[in-house]
Amino acid sequence: MDLAIGIDIGGTKTKIGLVDQQGECHEHMFFRTQEFENLDDFLDKIKNSIEELKGRLKFPVNCIGCGIGAPNASSRKGTIENAANLKWKGSVPLLEKLKERLNMPMRLMNDASAAALGELVFGNAKGMSDFIVLTLGTGLGAGIVANGKLIEGLDGFAGELGHVSMTLGDGRLTGLGVRGGLEAYVSATGLKRTIVYMQSKYMDPSRFRDIAMNDLHGEDITKAAEEGDPIALKAFDYTADILALAMANFTAFSQPEAFFLMGGLLNSGKWIMEPLEKYFEKYLLEVYKGKVKILTSGMDGKNAAICGAAALIWEVQ
Amino acid sequence: MDLAIGIDIGGTKTKIGLVDQQGECHEHMFFRTQEFENLDDFLDKIKNSIEELKGRLKFPVNCIGCGIGAPNASSRKGTIENAANLKWKGSVPLLEKLKERLNMPMRLMNDASAAALGELVFGNAKGMSDFIVLTLGTGLGAGIVANGKLIEGLDGFAGELGHVSMTLGDGRLTGLGVRGGLEAYVSATGLKRTIVYMQSKYMDPSRFRDIAMNDLHGEDITKAAEEGDPIALKAFDYTADILALAMANFTAFSQPEAFFLMGGLLNSGKWIMEPLEKYFEKYLLEVYKGKVKILTSGMDGKNAAICGAAALIWEVQ
Repeated sequence: MDLAIGIDIGGTKTKIGLVDQQGECHEHMFFRTQEFENLDDFLDKIKNSIEELKGRLKFPVNCIGCGIGAPNASSRKGTIENAANLKWKGSVPLLEKLKERLNMPMRLMNDASAAALGELVFGNAKGMSDFIVLTLGTGLGAGIVANGKLIEGLDGFAGELGHVSMTLGDGRLTGLGVRGGLEAYVSATGLKRTIVYMQSKYMDPSRFRDIAMNDLHGEDITKAAEEGDPIALKAFDYTADILALAMANFTAFSQPEAFFLMGGLLNSGKWIMEPLEKYFEKYLLEVYKGKVKILTSGMDGKNAAICGAAALIWEVQ
Repeated sequence: MDLAIGIDIGGTKTKIGLVDQQGECHEHMFFRTQEFENLDDFLDKIKNSIEELKGRLKFPVNCIGCGIGAPNASSRKGTIENAANLKWKGSVPLLEKLKERLNMPMRLMNDASAAALGELVFGNAKGMSDFIVLTLGTGLGAGIVANGKLIEGLDGFAGELGHVSMTLGDGRLTGLGVRGGLEAYVSATGLKRTIVYMQSKYMDPSRFRDIAMNDLHGEDITKAAEEGDPIALKAFDYTADILALAMANFTAFSQPEAFFLMGGLLNSGKWIMEPLEKYFEKYLLEVYKGKVKILTSGMDGKNAAICGAAALIWEVQ
């Protein structure tokens, strides 16, 4: 069976899977990205993982290529450059180094752009000409499709919407030093920063006053909201408000038919989505109101990032 | 000779001209848009103006079509909708009504998108795949080209960058009620608002303390800067700072090769351009630094908007 390897390199986890032409992920695994200080060790781990996955399948496999999604990746150069959420600094020649280990066609792309291609090839964006994927994980990434084509920009670095500045005044810094940058507010990490910020701003009692910032987990924040914790509720409202304003701004740029939201922050479900929908319609210009959908991925939730990376290969078959 | 009619409907002036295939404007004229409260009167004036222009030429003319640029225009619907800077409110069926008066192919487009097409067909963007035109006049408009194609969006309202919100906190309102909207700061009108704001903020002496806001003119602000007026200098610095931040944000979206700036605010020359270039490089993400040019129009300055509108017709010949 022909399968494409899909690899999603995230700030926290690296996920690898084997994906068929219909977008089904047959085998997958993950490991912690941050365990590998050294790029060569990381790439060896990828090579061994692929062998392991192939070994698990009960039928013969023909790997037709390897698609990779990663933060701050240049599709044109095959590099990862100055990624805020990865340990390897500077310009990392990922594709060149991986080619020393795997002999097959390869494509590298910004992780969120890969997710957008996945949505176009396998998911809920089939047939759409204009849409934007936002990945809300450790950071915030974006894949933008206009006129039916992915926007790559001059050298493949378009869609860095996590580092769009949201404010003229004082603001939080992103990992790349952008003051008031969107991902400092709207991401799994941004939500934790907001939990701490709300504790500084308000006197409400909260379970979080007994938990250190580094011990905060997304699931606990969701659970606290379910129990009515006022700090958790304020944090979700604040996060959704800023995301809504950013999405209204992005709508003014390319007037997408839909936004697709994915990533860890979306595990909070209605606590983020309900205030988001309310604020988004409020912030949209009259001319856009009622026309822009907020959707979730049409791909298997767990493996959306893997399938997106694999779509880089299936798209060009 | 085959000529295309180019019409630019602006908040202040409506300009009309006759443009050949090389982008040369043979005859042109303008009148004040705001003198026409009634749309039918305005369209009659357009019809009569075209007849007058044709009469001025000393050779026989074949009008192959009429291209129109206007604020808040929907290319897909042929309408102008809720334009902040025009008197006709709601959804204005411009193309349908003009067709009752002129019998030829017609295209309507957002004025800044028309300017972008003009730059692509006749001007300095020839051969570029990714660029953004910003028109800084009564308001702020944008025409965005990615992958060599104009971004129109779901129903032709992409590029409303004047109404992108720049701040999470308090901010100026645009004509469409967007808090902190870009054109409230960066436009000919925004500059006047800043002149007044700087008088409120600082105690410096200034010639503007003797001039009412409604009596301010762009040329006077430029002249005051040349004479070292501290309020004028602060106003240009502030305007350039916000424009630079916005352009850095837009770069994170589509990574253009260049921005083309045009419109009344650009008449201030170095007073806006020098601080703009300084702040822009400062705000750009590392990955974009040194790669994004700031250019001016490659078309005849006076007639750039007219030629842009005419490009709508020449593009499809």
